Amino acid sequence: MMVVDILERKIGVNFNDDGSAEIWLWAPPATAVSVWVNDSKLPLIMKKMDLGYWFLQTSLIKPLDMYHFEICKADGGFTDPAEKVLNLPDPASLFQYDGVAGNSKAFDLKGFNWTDDGWVGLDLQDFIIYELHTGTFTPNGDFESIESKLDYLLGLGITAIELMPIAQFPGNRNWGYDGVFPFAVQNTYGGPLALQHLVNACHKKGLAVILDVVYNHFGPEGNYFAEFGPYFTDKHQTPWGSAINFDDAGAHGVRNYFIENALMWFRDFHIDALRLDAVHAIQDFGEVHILSEIKSSVSKLAELKGKKYELIVELDLNDNQYINPQNKGGYGMDGQWIDEFHHALRVSAGQKPHGYYADFSGVAHLAKSYNDAYVYDGQFSPHRKKHFGKPANGNGGKQFVVFSQNHDQIGNRMLGERTSTLVSFEMLKLLAGAVFCSPFIPLIFMGEEWAETNPFQFFISHSDKDLIAAVRKGRKAEFAAFHHEEDTPDPQSETTFNHSKLDWNRLDTGQHNSLFTYYKHLISLRKTNPILADLNRDNVKAEALSNQQCVLLTRWYTSQKMICLMNF
Amino acid sequence: MMVVDILERKIGVNFNDDGSAEIWLWAPPATAVSVWVNDSKLPLIMKKMDLGYWFLQTSLIKPLDMYHFEICKADGGFTDPAEKVLNLPDPASLFQYDGVAGNSKAFDLKGFNWTDDGWVGLDLQDFIIYELHTGTFTPNGDFESIESKLDYLLGLGITAIELMPIAQFPGNRNWGYDGVFPFAVQNTYGGPLALQHLVNACHKKGLAVILDVVYNHFGPEGNYFAEFGPYFTDKHQTPWGSAINFDDAGAHGVRNYFIENALMWFRDFHIDALRLDAVHAIQDFGEVHILSEIKSSVSKLAELKGKKYELIVELDLNDNQYINPQNKGGYGMDGQWIDEFHHALRVSAGQKPHGYYADFSGVAHLAKSYNDAYVYDGQFSPHRKKHFGKPANGNGGKQFVVFSQNHDQIGNRMLGERTSTLVSFEMLKLLAGAVFCSPFIPLIFMGEEWAETNPFQFFISHSDKDLIAAVRKGRKAEFAAFHHEEDTPDPQSETTFNHSKLDWNRLDTGQHNSLFTYYKHLISLRKTNPILADLNRDNVKAEALSNQQCVLLTRWYTSQKMICLMNF
Repeated sequence: MMVVDILERKIGVNFNDDGSAEIWLWAPPATAVSVWVNDSKLPLIMKKMDLGYWFLQTSLIKPLDMYHFEICKADGGFTDPAEKVLNLPDPASLFQYDGVAGNSKAFDLKGFNWTDDGWVGLDLQDFIIYELHTGTFTPNGDFESIESKLDYLLGLGITAIELMPIAQFPGNRNWGYDGVFPFAVQNTYGGPLALQHLVNACHKKGLAVILDVVYNHFGPEGNYFAEFGPYFTDKHQTPWGSAINFDDAGAHGVRNYFIENALMWFRDFHIDALRLDAVHAIQDFGEVHILSEIKSSVSKLAELKGKKYELIVELDLNDNQYINPQNKGGYGMDGQWIDEFHHALRVSAGQKPHGYYADFSGVAHLAKSYNDAYVYDGQFSPHRKKHFGKPANGNGGKQFVVFSQNHDQIGNRMLGERTSTLVSFEMLKLLAGAVFCSPFIPLIFMGEEWAETNPFQFFISHSDKDLIAAVRKGRKAEFAAFHHEEDTPDPQSETTFNHSKLDWNRLDTGQHNSLFTYYKHLISLRKTNPILADLNRDNVKAEALSNQQCVLLTRWYTSQKMICLMNF
Repeated sequence: MMVVDILERKIGVNFNDDGSAEIWLWAPPATAVSVWVNDSKLPLIMKKMDLGYWFLQTSLIKPLDMYHFEICKADGGFTDPAEKVLNLPDPASLFQYDGVAGNSKAFDLKGFNWTDDGWVGLDLQDFIIYELHTGTFTPNGDFESIESKLDYLLGLGITAIELMPIAQFPGNRNWGYDGVFPFAVQNTYGGPLALQHLVNACHKKGLAVILDVVYNHFGPEGNYFAEFGPYFTDKHQTPWGSAINFDDAGAHGVRNYFIENALMWFRDFHIDALRLDAVHAIQDFGEVHILSEIKSSVSKLAELKGKKYELIVELDLNDNQYINPQNKGGYGMDGQWIDEFHHALRVSAGQKPHGYYADFSGVAHLAKSYNDAYVYDGQFSPHRKKHFGKPANGNGGKQFVVFSQNHDQIGNRMLGERTSTLVSFEMLKLLAGAVFCSPFIPLIFMGEEWAETNPFQFFISHSDKDLIAAVRKGRKAEFAAFHHEEDTPDPQSETTFNHSKLDWNRLDTGQHNSLFTYYKHLISLRKTNPILADLNRDNVKAEALSNQQCVLLTRWYTSQKMICLMNF
């Protein structure tokens, strides 16, 4: 029987200490399943187990072997019981060496020689997050190159890097949200071993690593899930089509799959925190929300390992049920992003109230966010056309991640402009101050600290022509109403990708360097000043001076008091 | 601004003490709205208010006047801005005198002279429920005829009648789940005044009244909701199509509509409890679940009125979040039906494990339900093909309604057979004993107490031919696999309806009368014996003797102990 083992990955191909492999695949509609290894002409027949699982123990597959599954299915229903035979990579593949269309490459998760024993993780309130996209952070765009920047990041003062999704996506250029192998580490970034090496290096230097994972949809290319089983349900619709099946018939296989995934990153890659993408699109009406079940498993692992593991969600709902403890009816997530802080801050800084910004008044709402975290906690939202939110009572400041920009807020603009090209240099400093003086967890987006002017645009590298055309068309349509004369950058073009890379040469020049120094001191102040370092929301009072476009933020700690006056 | 008033209905047409009327309609896409009264040639123009509402105060409409709305909408988008004009009844109509296709009839909710001042309601643990279908309970099939049976019901010992849905449905024969005017009381049952009269009579005799309400879908005929506004969302699918919109854009109007509805039954019809139909199909991912918002409003009303109001849900989820208190993260529902007790009981009594019965083992699962309420509290369910349920820890016995049959369990059989024609006379007594000796709230279905042998079949009286054909076809298809040679009763035929009426003449004959006496004594025992009357689940221990097909149920109260041996 397939039961998730907290201490060892079970799904996919895994190696025992004696070198033999155990292989588990969930494929309920299959009538027969075999594993094909390298160029062998002999398939290895898997055994049918309970609840749609298939199993094989074998010594005929070794680490770095290429393999795929052959699945026989009765197709066409009762009138045409012809068997359909499919040859597919492993949905729990750890390495797609040849990309999403290739076979899977076996990988020994336990093969890496970790030297981070002393590292136990970071307390939530100590996270100062640097979000980065592996492909555009450095000229080489891989994990190894990130390692060469760790000392720089330490010097800046950040305590955690957050990697945008690294699960295997089609091609070599992608934000990462088109991943189709949630267990496989992107081949063009260096694959699983390079990721383990990077995390080990981070821990040796005292840096935590957050990984962005996508449990709400799969990408459109290389997506074979429907062939394996009921990974989707028509009961709920998401922006990407039918929702992933967390509560309908067959959900056990899907739930196990994602629980295994979360456990793997913490246990086998020593990741410190997951950032779970857009969990409002994880639609689960079951008795135990999948996020809560993931939390329970991760808590067990944390206890067994004696480490700190955090689960931080991106959530477009002002609903603290997600971040409340499980014993109070919550799902037990440790923290959540609050985009509303960003929206209020940006409108304060002059952003016109288009689209979702229409809900935000500027300084009054920014003050509300300092006081209440959520701007909307029950009021009617004109943009959403409904009442929205409930009060975040009882949730500490460390449960909220704030920023003045992030990959989405930059890249979802047609031209992907960073704030550096949208507001004055003085305003850049004010934006940073607003974030670092907040009683929340600060996050900056790579290059923000030196006012990088290169954009961060939306890019893909699909191979399916229709899909490429559809993405191009969608991107143009998204901005049609706002930009009549400019051209949408072509998401498929390598130029768009290259334009989005950081230009590290700027760091040492003029105002870029001044801003870097400013960020460095601001972060240092945040870490060393006991008032700023304290994230107790009871010791915060913000007031908007709307006529003066100012926010007066008062914070205190024991007998000390600090007043931040922000003049927008 | 339209804000729900706990103490007075606001939606629809309502009369002030001075005789003038206030009219509120929610119709966001409308460009103009008028009210037409009786045969007047002068429309009354409504005023556009905030958030899609329209309002009018007028003295030109009186109670019992006929009226409808005229709605102008820009139709066809920007290229063809031709206006569409619709004449429709009031979605919050209180009386559809001429049926679902007719105009609405104004009704003064405050006109009835209540004489039940002394009645404060019933404690949840004292409910002994008699479920009845108004149309088939008596030969006349209306509210007035129910009143003539109240003394009989008192003699039997029940404490609450539960009316199957009485919201206006198409035609004059329907279970009630095809209702399309949630505020209107079925015209063929006698309309709103007759319902007020019945409830008043019940309270005078010390009987509580539970009303079955349907907040998860509307019926297919006479359903004009989509013309008025975004009552539906494509984000979720239910067995009846797109879900009612409780969490998408425009949800505020839909939520207010149902909150108003729940308040009205308690406040203006003195209903004691609502039985909310299939709330698992109410799909709400918003921050405050609509059930919780209904609970908050009803609690306020109860406090203001000094009465007891209960919310009991039908729920096909073993998820005690629904019935946990709001301060523990629950939705605050007071109780729920547990079909699983029924399924386990019926399999114990010889029901073959077809369909959903396949999940149930008989006595072992019956004992589990006595002990744990939920049979499945996390185990894998073969029928549902997923893990199902979580433990009902902390929930008292009074939160669970149990039965050996109900309208659904009878009527969802192709031939609508009651247990009286399926099991032996001795088994009927055992089934009753199993229900009344449980530490849960007992419910019986009309006629059960005298082993009525007339069936309770599925019937409709639609007027749309395609719809009738579709229902007939669906009904046949549902049973095609099980019944090859028998004919599905025609749901549209009046004969099917008439066959389903109780035959009160049986009550006085032979075994029918013996069973009635047996029920009477059993109910009396249940009410007077302190062990049976105590619904503390900590004082219960059930054990299955599987080889002997027996359940040994032990219950105790202070120093007293009772053992019920059930030999199936």
